[in-house]
Amino acid sequence: MSEKKRRGGAGAGAASGSASKKPRVSTAASYAESLRSKLRPDASILATLRSLASACSKSKPAGSSSSSSASKALAAEDDPAASYIVVADQDSASVTSRINRLVLAAARSILSGRGFSFAVPSRAASNQVYLPDLDRIVLVRRESARPFANVATARKATITARVLSLVHAVLRRGIHVTKRDLFYTDVKLFGDQAQSDAVLDDVSCMLGCTRSSLHVVASEKGVVVGRLTFADDGDRIDCTRMGVGGKAIPPNIDRVSGIESDALFILLVEKDAAFMRLAEDRFYNRFPCIILTAKGQPDVATRLFLRRLKVELKLPVLALVDSDPYGLKILSVYMCGSKNMSYDSANLTTPDIKWLGVRPSDLDKYRVPEQCRLPMTDHDIKVGKELLEEDFVKQNEGWVKELETMLRTRQKAEIQALSSFGFQYLTEVYLPLKLQQQDWI
Amino acid sequence: MSEKKRRGGAGAGAASGSASKKPRVSTAASYAESLRSKLRPDASILATLRSLASACSKSKPAGSSSSSSASKALAAEDDPAASYIVVADQDSASVTSRINRLVLAAARSILSGRGFSFAVPSRAASNQVYLPDLDRIVLVRRESARPFANVATARKATITARVLSLVHAVLRRGIHVTKRDLFYTDVKLFGDQAQSDAVLDDVSCMLGCTRSSLHVVASEKGVVVGRLTFADDGDRIDCTRMGVGGKAIPPNIDRVSGIESDALFILLVEKDAAFMRLAEDRFYNRFPCIILTAKGQPDVATRLFLRRLKVELKLPVLALVDSDPYGLKILSVYMCGSKNMSYDSANLTTPDIKWLGVRPSDLDKYRVPEQCRLPMTDHDIKVGKELLEEDFVKQNEGWVKELETMLRTRQKAEIQALSSFGFQYLTEVYLPLKLQQQDWI
Repeated sequence: MSEKKRRGGAGAGAASGSASKKPRVSTAASYAESLRSKLRPDASILATLRSLASACSKSKPAGSSSSSSASKALAAEDDPAASYIVVADQDSASVTSRINRLVLAAARSILSGRGFSFAVPSRAASNQVYLPDLDRIVLVRRESARPFANVATARKATITARVLSLVHAVLRRGIHVTKRDLFYTDVKLFGDQAQSDAVLDDVSCMLGCTRSSLHVVASEKGVVVGRLTFADDGDRIDCTRMGVGGKAIPPNIDRVSGIESDALFILLVEKDAAFMRLAEDRFYNRFPCIILTAKGQPDVATRLFLRRLKVELKLPVLALVDSDPYGLKILSVYMCGSKNMSYDSANLTTPDIKWLGVRPSDLDKYRVPEQCRLPMTDHDIKVGKELLEEDFVKQNEGWVKELETMLRTRQKAEIQALSSFGFQYLTEVYLPLKLQQQDWI
Repeated sequence: MSEKKRRGGAGAGAASGSASKKPRVSTAASYAESLRSKLRPDASILATLRSLASACSKSKPAGSSSSSSASKALAAEDDPAASYIVVADQDSASVTSRINRLVLAAARSILSGRGFSFAVPSRAASNQVYLPDLDRIVLVRRESARPFANVATARKATITARVLSLVHAVLRRGIHVTKRDLFYTDVKLFGDQAQSDAVLDDVSCMLGCTRSSLHVVASEKGVVVGRLTFADDGDRIDCTRMGVGGKAIPPNIDRVSGIESDALFILLVEKDAAFMRLAEDRFYNRFPCIILTAKGQPDVATRLFLRRLKVELKLPVLALVDSDPYGLKILSVYMCGSKNMSYDSANLTTPDIKWLGVRPSDLDKYRVPEQCRLPMTDHDIKVGKELLEEDFVKQNEGWVKELETMLRTRQKAEIQALSSFGFQYLTEVYLPLKLQQQDWI
């Protein structure tokens, strides 16, 4: 290919060349460009989004009207079944009084000469079940005694009492701490952090409240921009005025209040590169939305934040992830939680997320050039096959089809593969067309 | 240890127990608490900080008056020596015209029948030198020809021309893209991302401008709070009103403008847990400062942002890192840059950062309990010994002593070890006392 030819090729950002492979790059580029003409005026796309948003807000509690299981899942917190444990958010006063009750009971038990013992719910993997009705992983209610007057459990009972006392102090001071802070307050007793972490989870289950209710927070890495205002620790934040960098999602969700928005949907983005493109192009001004990303694997703070937005604003959530098994895995963490936080799953999960893109079928539909697709590794294929067996995939026929397409073609692609049609193709053509065609599943 | 005894122990957050090991935990805790009484009124500490800040702002260009090498380093950009390459920030118009000149020269060369060739500075490790006078790693000026009419370099010359054209388009559109976006615009030509990345670095050196001047940005992970206002892409950001989560540091530094501050110093924090503590306690309201963290290993966006703050505000920078070789490594990246970005080092580095804490000598000085210290691994010791040989350590006698103490005691400690004296010991006692005693080196 001569330099001259290359220079004469397509414009900036568009892939050019005289490739003979199919689909040919230049053809693909001009086809991709032709899709731009399919776009209807924004007003028409906005009307589509408005009806989606209103359908979503009518189903109460939050959850799309099309998904009855999601509604049930969210309703379940109001009346947790006695046979399983779904812990819930509690305010500081409520957690404090629960701790007081536990400690009073222990004191009475000691005074009556019976010593004391904690009843600790089992968090073992064998005790974790997926409830299809709720679309969530929960803990079966099965408690074991942790008596102080037993050489096998004396140490753990002591640690439990200590953690209860530390949490009580944190709540009284009205501050937030990390797991690491907690560990360092009594290294001699805890020995290593795994022990204080484990007991913290026990305490969370014992008190029936989330870890964030205990004011023990995770570090945040998520960011948000778009049509959203909220108060972070009393400071009013307008997310349309957060530049390209966006607002860091706060680690302590209980300090978030006054959530308001005129958005029509929430756009959940897997990667920060796509987030940056959307933020710089101020995509939310053209299509009113809230854009957020955890920059890869979702952290607890971002999951809590997304759930709060979904519950309070009752907006549809559309996801933009890579077209690979890992992208779907990320969706599963947002939707169903991860195994090791199952007892807290109800408060961390956002059911009913729609898979907007990039989907395996998009690769041909948008004629993504062969060179921008990547072959799946053996590990990818293994993960993909495992996902096919997962309930959250199985219950959505569209997802099964997409995953089968991925495994059949053995091809994956990143969101950024769309850059082959121009740096702003994502925001100017791909996403608007997706929204116009209501192309989410 | 009986449960009763434990309950009767020190208050919330303070480690209690009847340890017999030295230093005893309870003694250490009461000693730590006694340090609180050493604190003078805030007004007195503020006076100290004011004189530090004014000393710092008097030396022009930015850099502490006590460090002549730092001043020289920053002055050097105005007049880069001909024998080495220090690339500088350039505005879009300037970069565009440099590209135009390069391409015009190539066109003339072709028209005169001589074909064309790029002169590319060598970025090989052997070509990277540390200049003690500048306190920076720079590239020796040594260019190699990259002719198109040579089978060995034809492909690379083509890639170079393509990257120049893509950068030109990005600048013309006034947008920012990632390295990954750039790669995907012509996967067929680039083959893999390592190739387009490498040529991007070449282009940066050829044009004598930073990668951020090319509008190719890195993903950001840093956050900032405190006495700082600036505009991010035109949006006015007040960092005292960013809650606990803080403001995400923008990926594109050239969109940051209008930096204003009434802070007396910049507090650079290694980890987000300490950042969260400082933000929640609104430390910056008691001692006017700007608090920022890259959450571990410093990313390019955070380094650029810190440098901008330092250059424009002329404030002293105090660092709070773990007391281990890794903490010092992080300081070295902020101060001297990393090897693989050496050509860009002048624009990424902030010389003259003061090491506030946690320093090896603090462990005994503040009587950090033995159990909260960690033994250094063999790898830690190896890294520590290597650091002793590094110029940026050697030229600071205080740092050498601290590092020797660390290696002698073979102990390290995290910032959060201070939580053993109470969750807020860091913000209420440790840092105020450090500032009062001007205990930085």
